[in-house]
Amino acid sequence: MNASATPSIAAWVEQIRAGNIRALSRAITAVENRTPGYSELLKALFPYSGRARVVGLTGAPGAGKSTLVDALAAQYRKREKTVGIVAIDPTSPYTGGAILGDRIRMSSHSGDAGTFIRSMATRGALGGLSSTTADVATVMDAAGRDLVLIETVGVGQDEVDIVRLADITLVILVPGMGDDVQSIKAGIMEIADIFVINKADREGAERVEREIKAMQSLAMRHDNWIPPVLKTVAATGAGVPELAAAIDEYENFLVTSELGRQRRIANWRNRLREMLRDEVLRRIVEGAFTEELVSQYAEQITGNERDPYSLIDEIVNRLVRQEGEC
Amino acid sequence: MNASATPSIAAWVEQIRAGNIRALSRAITAVENRTPGYSELLKALFPYSGRARVVGLTGAPGAGKSTLVDALAAQYRKREKTVGIVAIDPTSPYTGGAILGDRIRMSSHSGDAGTFIRSMATRGALGGLSSTTADVATVMDAAGRDLVLIETVGVGQDEVDIVRLADITLVILVPGMGDDVQSIKAGIMEIADIFVINKADREGAERVEREIKAMQSLAMRHDNWIPPVLKTVAATGAGVPELAAAIDEYENFLVTSELGRQRRIANWRNRLREMLRDEVLRRIVEGAFTEELVSQYAEQITGNERDPYSLIDEIVNRLVRQEGEC
Repeated sequence: MNASATPSIAAWVEQIRAGNIRALSRAITAVENRTPGYSELLKALFPYSGRARVVGLTGAPGAGKSTLVDALAAQYRKREKTVGIVAIDPTSPYTGGAILGDRIRMSSHSGDAGTFIRSMATRGALGGLSSTTADVATVMDAAGRDLVLIETVGVGQDEVDIVRLADITLVILVPGMGDDVQSIKAGIMEIADIFVINKADREGAERVEREIKAMQSLAMRHDNWIPPVLKTVAATGAGVPELAAAIDEYENFLVTSELGRQRRIANWRNRLREMLRDEVLRRIVEGAFTEELVSQYAEQITGNERDPYSLIDEIVNRLVRQEGEC
Repeated sequence: MNASATPSIAAWVEQIRAGNIRALSRAITAVENRTPGYSELLKALFPYSGRARVVGLTGAPGAGKSTLVDALAAQYRKREKTVGIVAIDPTSPYTGGAILGDRIRMSSHSGDAGTFIRSMATRGALGGLSSTTADVATVMDAAGRDLVLIETVGVGQDEVDIVRLADITLVILVPGMGDDVQSIKAGIMEIADIFVINKADREGAERVEREIKAMQSLAMRHDNWIPPVLKTVAATGAGVPELAAAIDEYENFLVTSELGRQRRIANWRNRLREMLRDEVLRRIVEGAFTEELVSQYAEQITGNERDPYSLIDEIVNRLVRQEGEC
């Protein structure tokens, strides 16, 4: 990014702020792909961020998250709130693209500039998915979206990291999942501010509710908030207004208890670490760790001619400045 | 690690190589926790690695992976092969521990030194799970385990990264999963060398098989290997000998086609990048990026007093040596 590009960044930011959807879309693409200049753009947008409410949704596969996100967006549109949606899609490690990227979604919102949806592919080893997702949320926030919904598929650490970046976390459960799901649920149970039992017209919804409440009776959260358990049938919209009301209530709790600010600080602590990691890696990979060199090293290691642990030590010693040096 | 510790590392390696289970267990703990000296230990063990066959198993939640891993281990024990198992458990982001870490597993193997199992927690933002898992596999390999089985729960990018580090990848499916699972399956379909339909006595096994074969008819792998589709009922052991035979067959294919070596080189390329990232981050976090400083920055950013993107630029400029500098 050279200095002469700065005026165009300023114009771009102005368009985004004015609600220009194409400018917003282009900004998200730049941030997602780490296009040169993206960092300048984020610097320019940052002062306008911090106003949106960021809601993360996660849950086991098959819980109907996408449908619920769509229903929730529609609910907020009725209140004249603008919505931005970031949907994280699983990526094929070989093609690198978003598998669900071409799916038809949000047909009910198409043509409504008040709901902006962006699918994002999960990245390979180099990318920091939660960092990129957070940056995209920042762009939507700075663009003036009132509500930013982040939807993750799956139950891995990546998803937990992403959802932690939200102000409010919804964990979506569904009746009748297998036993293994129980153990996976445990990993995300603790991050729920609100539980949603979707597809609640199915048999077993009461059992899931009982299980959640039994779990809640065992341990109180540090902030004394007891996550409510809501039931929805996203496909019909049943329970969605009540869910929006529950989100309002938690939002209110965050504001009155000052916990919202604490949570944002905690989120920034995590986010700064990841940003630092990504940026250091980017510089190093662009510099000393070229494809060609990596291939050469990998071949030597596979042939047991070189020990990878000593190699990494050498490279890091060469690249990272010692304390007080220079 | 100071130089005087080297003799004890040598003795430790000797114990590990002699089959001492406690020494192996201690080594894995050191590697998993990045205890000071772990890097020296890995350097000393590395020359003995490269002999084990590393098999990765992944699949949707509820597919019965743990049971299948146990059955497969038992099958290899019948052939007098020693087995090492690394089971990746989802971690609670708050407690940091392995949720399933205390589960009773492998009771059928208890007392058999020929099967060594280690549960590993997924880590927070700082850790490189696939790097750590690969290091643990290297330790088991250097300890002389013939077969190393890496089992992951879940379907996220982390799991894909882990499974890519294996020589052979098994994707476990199960009849009767929901629609969303289809889309998630897509993310791991391409990495399968062998498909396993577990719980194949359930209704729908044939349908899953047909789906896989339909998918295979659409695209051929670059290496022309057509991943076989095996059916098992891990709980009873049905189909497990056939699965072991299929693994043998693929192993043979890897050797005769030289693809095994190519794959290991590709794996090392990925692994080197992750090792570099982890090590750089460790140095930087231990040095300039203390908890106190991060908290201070996070507070300033939350209050919109500081822009995080400029901050990261500053820090990286200070820490990463420029090309040709010094």
